[in-house]
Amino acid sequence: MRSVKDIANSIRLGRASAQQTISHYLQIIRQYDPPINSVTRILDERALKAAERIDLLIATGQDPGPLAGVPFAVKDLFDVQDEVTTAGSKILSKKSCANQDAEVIQRLCKAGAIPVATLNMDEFAYGFVTDNVHHGMTYNPHDLSRFAGGSSGGSAASVGGGIIPFSLGSDTNGSIRVPASLCGVWGIRPTFGLMPMQGVYPFAKSFDTIGPFCQTVEDLKLVFNVMAGVEDNASILPSVSDLQIAQVGGWFERDVEQDILKTIQEIMHLFGQQKKIEIPYIEQVRTASYLMTASEGGNLHLPMLRTQPLDYDPATRDRLMAGAMLPVASYLQAQKVKTWFQNYLAEIFKEYDLLIAPAVGAAAPLIDNPIVYVDGQPVPARVHLGIYTQPFSMSKCPVLSIPFQRKGKPPVGLQLIAQPYQEKLLFAVGSVLEQNGLAKASIIHRDAIT
Amino acid sequence: MRSVKDIANSIRLGRASAQQTISHYLQIIRQYDPPINSVTRILDERALKAAERIDLLIATGQDPGPLAGVPFAVKDLFDVQDEVTTAGSKILSKKSCANQDAEVIQRLCKAGAIPVATLNMDEFAYGFVTDNVHHGMTYNPHDLSRFAGGSSGGSAASVGGGIIPFSLGSDTNGSIRVPASLCGVWGIRPTFGLMPMQGVYPFAKSFDTIGPFCQTVEDLKLVFNVMAGVEDNASILPSVSDLQIAQVGGWFERDVEQDILKTIQEIMHLFGQQKKIEIPYIEQVRTASYLMTASEGGNLHLPMLRTQPLDYDPATRDRLMAGAMLPVASYLQAQKVKTWFQNYLAEIFKEYDLLIAPAVGAAAPLIDNPIVYVDGQPVPARVHLGIYTQPFSMSKCPVLSIPFQRKGKPPVGLQLIAQPYQEKLLFAVGSVLEQNGLAKASIIHRDAIT
Repeated sequence: MRSVKDIANSIRLGRASAQQTISHYLQIIRQYDPPINSVTRILDERALKAAERIDLLIATGQDPGPLAGVPFAVKDLFDVQDEVTTAGSKILSKKSCANQDAEVIQRLCKAGAIPVATLNMDEFAYGFVTDNVHHGMTYNPHDLSRFAGGSSGGSAASVGGGIIPFSLGSDTNGSIRVPASLCGVWGIRPTFGLMPMQGVYPFAKSFDTIGPFCQTVEDLKLVFNVMAGVEDNASILPSVSDLQIAQVGGWFERDVEQDILKTIQEIMHLFGQQKKIEIPYIEQVRTASYLMTASEGGNLHLPMLRTQPLDYDPATRDRLMAGAMLPVASYLQAQKVKTWFQNYLAEIFKEYDLLIAPAVGAAAPLIDNPIVYVDGQPVPARVHLGIYTQPFSMSKCPVLSIPFQRKGKPPVGLQLIAQPYQEKLLFAVGSVLEQNGLAKASIIHRDAIT
Repeated sequence: MRSVKDIANSIRLGRASAQQTISHYLQIIRQYDPPINSVTRILDERALKAAERIDLLIATGQDPGPLAGVPFAVKDLFDVQDEVTTAGSKILSKKSCANQDAEVIQRLCKAGAIPVATLNMDEFAYGFVTDNVHHGMTYNPHDLSRFAGGSSGGSAASVGGGIIPFSLGSDTNGSIRVPASLCGVWGIRPTFGLMPMQGVYPFAKSFDTIGPFCQTVEDLKLVFNVMAGVEDNASILPSVSDLQIAQVGGWFERDVEQDILKTIQEIMHLFGQQKKIEIPYIEQVRTASYLMTASEGGNLHLPMLRTQPLDYDPATRDRLMAGAMLPVASYLQAQKVKTWFQNYLAEIFKEYDLLIAPAVGAAAPLIDNPIVYVDGQPVPARVHLGIYTQPFSMSKCPVLSIPFQRKGKPPVGLQLIAQPYQEKLLFAVGSVLEQNGLAKASIIHRDAIT
């Protein structure tokens, strides 16, 4: 699959028309998605019309934008004009169509990008495996017997599977970082509050973020900047030579495969770093994020849980109902933990520029054996795959999800954590890692059979 | 009772010593407080020592501060060094003494003021009548058969009763504005988040504020500025001639005695204003403030409710327990109401500089008939006296509590509401009202029998 930058350049320079390009990728989706099952809808008509418009702009000498003619797909919780935003649910599939695109889709379209499909997800984004009771399972493109991860499983699998050049997803407790890692693509959970959330179906509002999935860190930065409305200013790129980086140990080493920890060591070595820190009470932080997510999600769904409980996936329904009924004291105590954790991290960031930790402890679990290990004990993957991502959702920090490959094993990923609004630093370091072969996406190459 | 300004000036100019002044007021407290029962502790030793220090500063030509030698008293939820902060409870009365004064007391002492007593309150500030099961009832100084209001009843009664020149209290849902109105003194609920809360025993943290009670608006401004650490800059005083003021009608007129509404009309007339607005869903706003206060208070007290339930006033205990057990969905919905209300008020403040509304619907209820009327129905005063103050606690707005007198009736008060951080405007308008006889504190004159 060609990169976002390549595709846009070809079209901008007139080497390929947007219409040819879009037709090509629509065919790729039809040919190669079925075994992966990442796509829930193909937006042929809209996509071809948009491509025609891009070609017209080019023909008349107008600027078609930095993402001219690049196809992309979105998790089915972003509003797409004239489509129903289902959030992977049966309940919302009966609602009326969206009047307009979500704000970030508008921004991407303005930059020339073209939405071509919607993508599978865990129902209402509540899960880490993208096993959707209404749309079926999304399979890991690198090993169809394994999970893609979730809840943005369609977003990660479509990029890793070479179906789509880039995609959008959402991350509440790890729903970008977990599937990005397991499908071997780049992803980012942006600074909390940075991205416009207009037209995004919520889950737990004080944790929800949205972000892109890409094949290279360069693409990720390009798409991120358009989504965030940020001007890329190369002159203020941070220097990466004097960075203070710490590995997060303790909880973030237990249950983690040795070759993942070895890659972290190699990265530390590359930057001449050797500090390891431990964050106390990290299990309580994760518990608090659970309680708060369940509470906020439960409250959001309470009116529908009252009237249409049977239209929910039973697993989702029970978690949401339990969440809505939690006593308020649990939520308020969890909120205190959140404040404590944010203050604690702020102190750490006085000493360090970046923290590094695993995003997952091992490759994607087998669908036939849907477990992960916590404290050496097997627990359900659907609920616990986010063991390393959930704690950082309690901060406002941006987290880069870095893919890397291991010989003879499906891909995994790391988390690089910076202070709020320091995404530039994450991209700069990601780029160094990519150049040094310490980070690499796993993307399947596809040829359209025309 | 002489004003704060007068007392400080006498001492600063050497007309009276601080030690004479403090001795005088300690005697006033001993002589006149017993029937009112506003004071829970007299701090003779500390007060006389502090007075000696002030006199020494003056004798050696040093500046004793703008509040030199002025005695004041504090609601018993402010930390006073070497005293136990009881918050009006039996439970905390067994705890150890405070290591240092609350931050605002430190600021006042630095300005020369001298704490001479602690004051009665509803247990843990949960109530509007200052009927304390451990310390007894505080009586309205203007009619001992009536309530002083609460929860800062001791703070208001001590100033209105001519016992103390100024006092400090706290306002979560109206605990400054209700007793200030019923005891006929000036009070202010400052902008939420403006005052330092260090050393103040909390109730519901997302609503808690602290503020002064005074005899004149000039005193109020003087004390407020010291507490807030604000420099008084006369040159940037707002002009009051072109102010847009709106009366809040609807809910804020029902159950309100006619002569209170008439005073509002006279004030509107004075400023050449005639606009009346209604705020929709105001009953829901008040309900939401109830739920959130009970939740936050309940969560705060849960550990002690579990181990020492019998040490609580039964009425306080039951409300706190119920609060802690509320399902989280109620709290999260109430939080949405709060956000909605703050946004709604922000829109209103684009058109108006100030809002005016009653603080209470009638004079203090009789202790023998402890009711107020809501929608024409009698309901318990302890819970419902804050009917008009609670809604504005859901905003971050500062609210001036304006006392006024009615012939042959105990005092009442109004609320003047400004945008956050616009206290200056409130003081300026309060001053105009005072000068025009539309606002007046009711202070009993006391002579010490020496």
